[in-house]
Amino acid sequence: MKELRVDEALLASIKGYENRNAYVSPFAFQPEGTMQEAADLKGQVRRTKVVASLEEAIKKSGLKDGMTISFHHHFRDGDKVLPMVMEIIANMGFKDLRVAASSFTGAHECMVEYIEKGVVNRIESSGLRGKLAQAVSNGVLASPAVIRSHGGRARAIVEGDLKIDVAFLGVPSSDCMGNANGVIGKSVCGSLGYAMVDAQYAKKVVLITDTLVAYPNHPISIPQTQVDFVVEVEEIGDPNGIMSGATRFTKNPKELLIAKNVVKAMIASGYFVDGFSMQTGSGGAALAVTRFMKEEMLKRDIKCSYALGGITAAFASLLEEGLVKEIFDVQDFDLGGVASITKNALHQEISADFYASPFNKSAAVNKLDFVVLSALEIDRDFNVNVISGSNGVIRAASGGHSDAAACAKMSIIVAPLLRGRLPIVIDRVTTVVTPGETVDVLVTELGITVNPLRQDLKANFEKAGIELIEMDTLIERAKFLAGEPKKAEFSDEVVAVVEYRDGSIIDVIKKVK
Amino acid sequence: MKELRVDEALLASIKGYENRNAYVSPFAFQPEGTMQEAADLKGQVRRTKVVASLEEAIKKSGLKDGMTISFHHHFRDGDKVLPMVMEIIANMGFKDLRVAASSFTGAHECMVEYIEKGVVNRIESSGLRGKLAQAVSNGVLASPAVIRSHGGRARAIVEGDLKIDVAFLGVPSSDCMGNANGVIGKSVCGSLGYAMVDAQYAKKVVLITDTLVAYPNHPISIPQTQVDFVVEVEEIGDPNGIMSGATRFTKNPKELLIAKNVVKAMIASGYFVDGFSMQTGSGGAALAVTRFMKEEMLKRDIKCSYALGGITAAFASLLEEGLVKEIFDVQDFDLGGVASITKNALHQEISADFYASPFNKSAAVNKLDFVVLSALEIDRDFNVNVISGSNGVIRAASGGHSDAAACAKMSIIVAPLLRGRLPIVIDRVTTVVTPGETVDVLVTELGITVNPLRQDLKANFEKAGIELIEMDTLIERAKFLAGEPKKAEFSDEVVAVVEYRDGSIIDVIKKVK
Repeated sequence: MKELRVDEALLASIKGYENRNAYVSPFAFQPEGTMQEAADLKGQVRRTKVVASLEEAIKKSGLKDGMTISFHHHFRDGDKVLPMVMEIIANMGFKDLRVAASSFTGAHECMVEYIEKGVVNRIESSGLRGKLAQAVSNGVLASPAVIRSHGGRARAIVEGDLKIDVAFLGVPSSDCMGNANGVIGKSVCGSLGYAMVDAQYAKKVVLITDTLVAYPNHPISIPQTQVDFVVEVEEIGDPNGIMSGATRFTKNPKELLIAKNVVKAMIASGYFVDGFSMQTGSGGAALAVTRFMKEEMLKRDIKCSYALGGITAAFASLLEEGLVKEIFDVQDFDLGGVASITKNALHQEISADFYASPFNKSAAVNKLDFVVLSALEIDRDFNVNVISGSNGVIRAASGGHSDAAACAKMSIIVAPLLRGRLPIVIDRVTTVVTPGETVDVLVTELGITVNPLRQDLKANFEKAGIELIEMDTLIERAKFLAGEPKKAEFSDEVVAVVEYRDGSIIDVIKKVK
Repeated sequence: MKELRVDEALLASIKGYENRNAYVSPFAFQPEGTMQEAADLKGQVRRTKVVASLEEAIKKSGLKDGMTISFHHHFRDGDKVLPMVMEIIANMGFKDLRVAASSFTGAHECMVEYIEKGVVNRIESSGLRGKLAQAVSNGVLASPAVIRSHGGRARAIVEGDLKIDVAFLGVPSSDCMGNANGVIGKSVCGSLGYAMVDAQYAKKVVLITDTLVAYPNHPISIPQTQVDFVVEVEEIGDPNGIMSGATRFTKNPKELLIAKNVVKAMIASGYFVDGFSMQTGSGGAALAVTRFMKEEMLKRDIKCSYALGGITAAFASLLEEGLVKEIFDVQDFDLGGVASITKNALHQEISADFYASPFNKSAAVNKLDFVVLSALEIDRDFNVNVISGSNGVIRAASGGHSDAAACAKMSIIVAPLLRGRLPIVIDRVTTVVTPGETVDVLVTELGITVNPLRQDLKANFEKAGIELIEMDTLIERAKFLAGEPKKAEFSDEVVAVVEYRDGSIIDVIKKVK
């Protein structure tokens, strides 16, 4: 095209086009970073995003002091990406970074050192564990840590509350353009649900993989349209680390009793009908629920329309057997879950946004009938703490707890009355993560307790002949067995803020004395 | 949660939290339209988006005079959604709407009436056909129509150049929450690639389906997270309309000759090696290329890494036979394509953004080796017209033509020297859609012509012993056969602007005299 057909004069003569660009050449108006240098026109089209090293990717990403970087935790305790990237970032001399991870796990204790050295000065996450959690509770950070639910984090990213400058995303496989998934490769993790949101919204996206495959990769969890750089490394994670703290079938009689009571409550609720939907966690009682529930489904010849959440082999089996029609999977809790999402198309990978964001046009949690959730503490008003210990020290994660509780028709907390000598059902939880008005039922080894807000459920349970136990009775019983619990002592300094899923602040965590 | 843990005073004491909200109740800060009225908390969670009628959906969408609505054209000549929605909108008395369709087809002639009545005053589209195209060329619109490529439309939507207030998207199946696909239902269309972009970015999204399925629908092309309302109607389209003007194997000796020359050029280019990639259109010559190419692939024992574009049964067969590793499908051109995307996981649905947007971090066109494209006219500088006839009247569509041409290592235009008595290879095209510097090779029944910008290709062709024919010779030959073409006559009024994929204006179309 030697002759240009359109010029400023012509555009000026067309109403509304006065300030528009006339065509100049095919790549004249490309956004920065989407093309490459080349003498010939077609050579300017980037045909690979693979760079030689993490250092090079970091340099090219434009990372600067004070920026926000992100990671996902799909490898859980087996993650090798965050430590690898942070070591290089520290060596490159960056300071004052905000690190926004979907969660920090036991694999991320190195963060303490980077905070102490000033490489990192802010952290945002679903959870904090081990030495990092202890250090934050001791006041290592100048600004409070931000704790968000999985749905709340997706919302914050989409709404721009959490702006990510560079996302460093470990992916089990990628092609040279950045089409990536979690089901092929040396170190599979299954769903990449949390990472999908970072990839979509981060300004720059660096994929880190130990399995670079021929173009095009399939399936595509993270698409090339969102990826800036791809780096091949030796090893991104240890798939056995995914298993950590997860899924075994319990033989603990207390947990089995709780599980039986949960299923009893589900049946009596009126919601246990063909097409019901379900989320459970990965604890012993939750898995036992799945087993007992299966027996009741077979007895009644009903099926589950979808199972949601962090997925275990237990739900994967129900899918295989046709008892669950579809699985929505934001994260895999065990290798059985990973194997299932790899082979079964009805085991559907979903993003954290699809899973639980309160601000999109409806998340998967919005259609939940039942969710079975655990608790570190639950109080008289049914408020649940899943983030801090009774000693006030941060130790766990918000996860999807408040997201699922808010939307499920019947949210069920499973908890023992005591753990060791610690009372779990108490007057006032140390930290509120999930507000009591969203918690419908508590099941302990002593039986079923209904939130007074749910008189409808109470009536159904009573109609079914279930003897309910009052919250007051539980708390008295716990006190009788364990004595009045010792209050954690705090200083005035806020070390973490707990965001509710909608971005409002539901509680703060203070420095332990 | 009766006791609120956080108040303004506490937030004011935390640096950076002075203006944040304290938690109030679970749904206190929800965006408008995401919940429903109910006395009980959990009843506020919307569990269906099905509304009784299109009227109700339109009312609830908040549509107002002067707003922008959108449609897709996956049903091509079989579309019943646009006429159905526009009739109701007209009856409801709306005025001055902008209608942004991915394309207008022969099923959309009703638009002329709505423009004349003032219901619609602006249109934006990839193409215009039939009576609507003629009316626009005659100046029926007060503001010029906007013509965009498929990649350019995705870019415009993502960048906010084209802000859609309400998208009305026909979907072959949906569940009550808006999980939708094009492969299940009474009226399947296969890929929903164009609609995916509208669903993601429109303020309000109304799905229109004739097949409402149990929750959750599978697969998910449009997710519930993007959908506001679902309306069930009698019939959304006629799948046989998808076939219109498409795909038969040609017996035309001129087309067969052109196809053979195309394959000869591909082989000689140096790009026809294992792992090459490919896009073709749906014309007779393009389909013949696929057949001849297959023979050469078998002979050389090489495979195609991915086939791209509007997809026909021809590429679906190559996928089945393992000769193509993956198909990226933004639109199905025939029912064979639809059948393939329904059953074969390696037949991957992609959005128009993934297909061809120039402003994301790389589209599928960016890895193309070959694209075979047709032309209404091509000129001395290799500029291509695919939008207007030689008489100056709009008659066709921009499509993905300029997107694929810009990025493919070798873009090949196939065209006869003449169509009837009309010369196709001419001095100066009536309208430029695809700029000549992105067009590498022209193949006519007279042989292969190389763009002088591509001396590298010219050298490869000559090394392969191909006798090339110069552009000047083609034009002279066309003139000799058909005489000097009669120039179309235009008035000064601009009736349409042609945007290049990056949003710059590459040409305008004027009112015909």
